[in-house]
Amino acid sequence: MELIENLNWRYAVKRMTGAKVPQQKVNSILEAARLSASSAGMQPYKIIVVEGGELKKQLQPLAFNQPQITEASHLLIFAAFEKITAQDIDDFITLQATVKNVAPESLAVFKDRLVTSILHRTEEENFNWAARQAYIALGTSLIAATNEAVDATPMEGFDPAAFDELLGLKKLGLKSIAMLVLGYRDEANDFLAKAPKVRKLMKDFVVNI
Amino acid sequence: MELIENLNWRYAVKRMTGAKVPQQKVNSILEAARLSASSAGMQPYKIIVVEGGELKKQLQPLAFNQPQITEASHLLIFAAFEKITAQDIDDFITLQATVKNVAPESLAVFKDRLVTSILHRTEEENFNWAARQAYIALGTSLIAATNEAVDATPMEGFDPAAFDELLGLKKLGLKSIAMLVLGYRDEANDFLAKAPKVRKLMKDFVVNI
Repeated sequence: MELIENLNWRYAVKRMTGAKVPQQKVNSILEAARLSASSAGMQPYKIIVVEGGELKKQLQPLAFNQPQITEASHLLIFAAFEKITAQDIDDFITLQATVKNVAPESLAVFKDRLVTSILHRTEEENFNWAARQAYIALGTSLIAATNEAVDATPMEGFDPAAFDELLGLKKLGLKSIAMLVLGYRDEANDFLAKAPKVRKLMKDFVVNI
Repeated sequence: MELIENLNWRYAVKRMTGAKVPQQKVNSILEAARLSASSAGMQPYKIIVVEGGELKKQLQPLAFNQPQITEASHLLIFAAFEKITAQDIDDFITLQATVKNVAPESLAVFKDRLVTSILHRTEEENFNWAARQAYIALGTSLIAATNEAVDATPMEGFDPAAFDELLGLKKLGLKSIAMLVLGYRDEANDFLAKAPKVRKLMKDFVVNI
């Protein structure tokens, strides 16, 4: 796996060609995201997939009219759980018990640990925690896209509350936090296409103790 | 690249053998992290690398005495910028100008946009933003480790303030947020080694609109 090469190939594409990304490639990216690690394995977020042109046009003005919104093939909107409830923990334990083929009661210690650590935090703390977990999947999705030779631009530059309203996320208990737009770079029109990647030197990024 | 296979291979290893991970593999993982995407490319976090056994022993009681702390080869501690300052933005613009071989003044519009978006937020908002960016690199590092056949366990279960104190992070303007311990799974002693991976079904993870 040419991970380093892939990471160097990718960049935050600002102009896309409008070409469609085959569904099979989108599915591979979503599968990688689904397999991502998360704290305790709880996956406290969802990915909203927007493909339709009309909806993308409606979202665009809520994201500073950035052209890649409508030039992209698919928008993956990462949305974190607004809060974590006792029901979320119950559902998670049920899923664990089902997959592991054990009685839910045998997971009582694990469940107690989750209840203690999660339900004693504020809603805001849990939302921030959930958002971080989603960013692990965002990092995974970026790599999965390179693997499929698909361009993927992570974006925070949008109005989350307006997105939530338009997409009906509030009634799902979700808040949008980041977006990954999938498509193909338009090299002729993207000023960033030929720009060198800028990253801190290793000595300014890592502290060896 | 067998990304899906690699993601299925990995799990949150709880017991490790104590074997050393070759420095070259650690370097590959750090290089992948360094190349990770971040909002505006600012990389508002650092990775603290702990290899020494004595320090790991001191950190262990601050992390619920979890055995993998001392059984791991290396600890990568992800630490976000406590706050984002005008100096951070200046340094970033200088780096951009240097790598792109342009005058810093030519990046005035980009800089103004950063100043407007970042310096108008509260310190806490910027810390949470910085922490999310670090989690993109955490996701990247997890994949980079699988690529090197190295086990990597992400951990939030530690006392961040105590870690910061012991590692001297406060004077570096950093706050620890997550840890990735690198090593090799001890299959005989790890109750999770044979457990199936538990993930939500795709229908419960993705919302198609």
